Amino acid sequence: MAVESAAALSGKDVVGISHLSPGEIQLILDTAEELLEVAKRPIKKVPALRGSTVVNLFMEASTRTRFSFEVAEKRLSADTLNFAASSSSVSKGETLFDTARNLMAMAPDFIVIRHPHSGAPHRLAKVVPASIINAGDGINEHPTQALLDAFTMRQTFADLEGLKVVIAGDIRHSRVARSNAFLLDKMGAEVRFVAPASLQPVDVEELGVIPFLRLEPALEGADVVMMLRIQLERQKRVNFPSMREYFDFFALTPERLDLAAGHAIVMHPGPMNRGVEIDSGVADGPRSVILDQVTNGVAIRMAILYLLAGGRSEAASDS
Amino acid sequence: MAVESAAALSGKDVVGISHLSPGEIQLILDTAEELLEVAKRPIKKVPALRGSTVVNLFMEASTRTRFSFEVAEKRLSADTLNFAASSSSVSKGETLFDTARNLMAMAPDFIVIRHPHSGAPHRLAKVVPASIINAGDGINEHPTQALLDAFTMRQTFADLEGLKVVIAGDIRHSRVARSNAFLLDKMGAEVRFVAPASLQPVDVEELGVIPFLRLEPALEGADVVMMLRIQLERQKRVNFPSMREYFDFFALTPERLDLAAGHAIVMHPGPMNRGVEIDSGVADGPRSVILDQVTNGVAIRMAILYLLAGGRSEAASDS
Amino acid sequence: MAVESAAALSGKDVVGISHLSPGEIQLILDTAEELLEVAKRPIKKVPALRGSTVVNLFMEASTRTRFSFEVAEKRLSADTLNFAASSSSVSKGETLFDTARNLMAMAPDFIVIRHPHSGAPHRLAKVVPASIINAGDGINEHPTQALLDAFTMRQTFADLEGLKVVIAGDIRHSRVARSNAFLLDKMGAEVRFVAPASLQPVDVEELGVIPFLRLEPALEGADVVMMLRIQLERQKRVNFPSMREYFDFFALTPERLDLAAGHAIVMHPGPMNRGVEIDSGVADGPRSVILDQVTNGVAIRMAILYLLAGGRSEAASDS
Repeated sequence: MAVESAAALSGKDVVGISHLSPGEIQLILDTAEELLEVAKRPIKKVPALRGSTVVNLFMEASTRTRFSFEVAEKRLSADTLNFAASSSSVSKGETLFDTARNLMAMAPDFIVIRHPHSGAPHRLAKVVPASIINAGDGINEHPTQALLDAFTMRQTFADLEGLKVVIAGDIRHSRVARSNAFLLDKMGAEVRFVAPASLQPVDVEELGVIPFLRLEPALEGADVVMMLRIQLERQKRVNFPSMREYFDFFALTPERLDLAAGHAIVMHPGPMNRGVEIDSGVADGPRSVILDQVTNGVAIRMAILYLLAGGRSEAASDS
Repeated sequence: MAVESAAALSGKDVVGISHLSPGEIQLILDTAEELLEVAKRPIKKVPALRGSTVVNLFMEASTRTRFSFEVAEKRLSADTLNFAASSSSVSKGETLFDTARNLMAMAPDFIVIRHPHSGAPHRLAKVVPASIINAGDGINEHPTQALLDAFTMRQTFADLEGLKVVIAGDIRHSRVARSNAFLLDKMGAEVRFVAPASLQPVDVEELGVIPFLRLEPALEGADVVMMLRIQLERQKRVNFPSMREYFDFFALTPERLDLAAGHAIVMHPGPMNRGVEIDSGVADGPRSVILDQVTNGVAIRMAILYLLAGGRSEAASDS
Repeated sequence: MAVESAAALSGKDVVGISHLSPGEIQLILDTAEELLEVAKRPIKKVPALRGSTVVNLFMEASTRTRFSFEVAEKRLSADTLNFAASSSSVSKGETLFDTARNLMAMAPDFIVIRHPHSGAPHRLAKVVPASIINAGDGINEHPTQALLDAFTMRQTFADLEGLKVVIAGDIRHSRVARSNAFLLDKMGAEVRFVAPASLQPVDVEELGVIPFLRLEPALEGADVVMMLRIQLERQKRVNFPSMREYFDFFALTPERLDLAAGHAIVMHPGPMNRGVEIDSGVADGPRSVILDQVTNGVAIRMAILYLLAGGRSEAASDS
């Protein structure tokens, strides 16, 4: 292993990959490895967070990520409270700042936040003593997704260093692509972004990735192929090719996958549009680790909660 | 007791009455009898499902059934996760198959599913290792309702064999009527379906029931009178008489109830339309066991979860 | 302390301040004081309500109050079930009476109810054996809010007797103002209602409060200044001044606050409209106890649940 694991997380929050050191990333992955087996026990529960309160503050619709966090929280014996945008005071004109301060007055230990505005979790982290975990902020970061992706890659390749990772789709608007680029760059992997020019990120140079306009050349020798979800809600914009055209040029088909390395794995953050960005034969094929990603997501979120709880876990273990 | 109780449930799922043997039905009813008293304790909780995860996957609006399941799950100390159609990935175009496989990747032990399409729970049961419990699928089955109804009848009559059971209302579109017909036929009861010809089921012969076009003759000598809810959302169809006409011909009034046996009980799966299919005097009268049905529903759902947990309960009891 | 604490709550419910004696109010405040420290422990949980079921029956949108109750319930180890109006049988035409009786058949120990109709919790309390806690009914009462407000005042002033309390805003439609008036009158405080004539309550005389048409004279010598939220959803009515006009005449600004006593505290039940009824400088200033109110709300709700549980807590403590 090229990177040595840190002894603990240095901050109280996990708001972005850009704030984590390679050693901290390694620590989260190693901890998730240990927690992964909790899901295989007959009693899938450990008392680490008993008596802790976690608020899931989702200001943007999400099932999959919220669900994964809620499973993780319950497996750690935390008390969970769900706070969705639609039913919230926010609709009565309250600011995020006031909502957060009100939540804090109820003394939660963790706030898991998804927010349409980039940087919202970071601002929140500065004003409240609770640990903030970013579950996706605008087009900025989605750190737990990048961590579960790295964990999934490690299950096949042991080390991330030197891996060639293709990420294809609407990169410009993808916080998943962005967090993955940060993480993979820190861990020494090579990242290839595939998208039409209009969907490449504006800061592609600074991200340390190699941009490709077509899928085929990017796939050559690739160890990992990650297809992003086409966000149909963004189709109205003119910079988007038609769905049919998209499939013809950018979908991962069995033929295209043959261009990658023989041991290449296929990833997708879900939910998939079968027949749009990914062929069903590939999605359900032997190289697909898409469902492993979901399983690993719970372990990664448990690991982050567990590590951020820090000293609290001692108090929990002897009760 | 004519039917001998089975030693255990033979399958991993409860997707329909048509899949259960009389002995299995007896086992569920007997187990519910024991679990009924948990609700009367000061601490209404047993540790049987501690550390188990139950996903309540409701793709159709429901309060009463979801609530009853959630109470049952919590009384067994399970961790519950609610997944409602409106807020789900389904609205992002994901198939039930992908949603279910994603849920499975988080390793739930049970999925309680309500779905607008008949057969959805059965298809799900084939592809996932979790135990599937059908909470109502299209116009097909609602097995936990039929089981709680049978349990409620048994509280008055001890044995179901030979009972004369009237079921009246929009039978054609009622999964409650269908599951009750399956169950009562298996247990040796006589079932009488009352509905205008247009609302009788197409396979009335195969169900082994006696069809009646009017309520009065069906009520003669009846031991049980079960009134179904008029589903106002289906009123648009032309095959439905007006609400007033419906009351005049098909509502259960005190006068009509006098035609049944002196010991007859009155049932309704709820929610009731007072003054439409049932008179308030009957609904709240001494023969009504409508609220017992609700109480018994929790015990039946606890029994099914408990029995399906099978070997898991041993693991739970010594921790 | 002028008022002596009662030994126990005399009723099974807390539906309004008007039903509580001064001694009972004192008992709730004293109990909340002890429970307040639970939120400061590493394990923020006591087993007092383990195995008890609490139904949160919110027939009106609410985040803050529902959330505060849910936190309180979980800190007492109760099982909580949320029942929201939108997804309920109520939309299928069921009456509150039938919904409640159905809920009761599932044997909950507590029902926390918010309802748009004044008196709904009181009617419910008469027909069900569960303990009913009013979380706001129409324009009638919001007793837990008044209790947390009193608790917050006591943190600064030790005794409520003789306190001069200004309550300003849309008093006529405010259950918060009404419950506060009842409580403060019982405890010997002086209440001053500030609102334009059209927004004064019709029974202002009977409430034992002093009405003021302008904020300035009411503030003279005030110990407590409580600003109510302008309910923008009621703006359509003609009896309401424009928002700008409202701010000019009725908003609490730093200059206006200087008219109150030097030790005066500022309160608001939230969510605040900054720049409408309250200036941000005041809301976030050194005299503001607005966030203490939120913290105290959890302790007050814990205290009420704890006291109503009564004998049940003995059963819980030895398990």
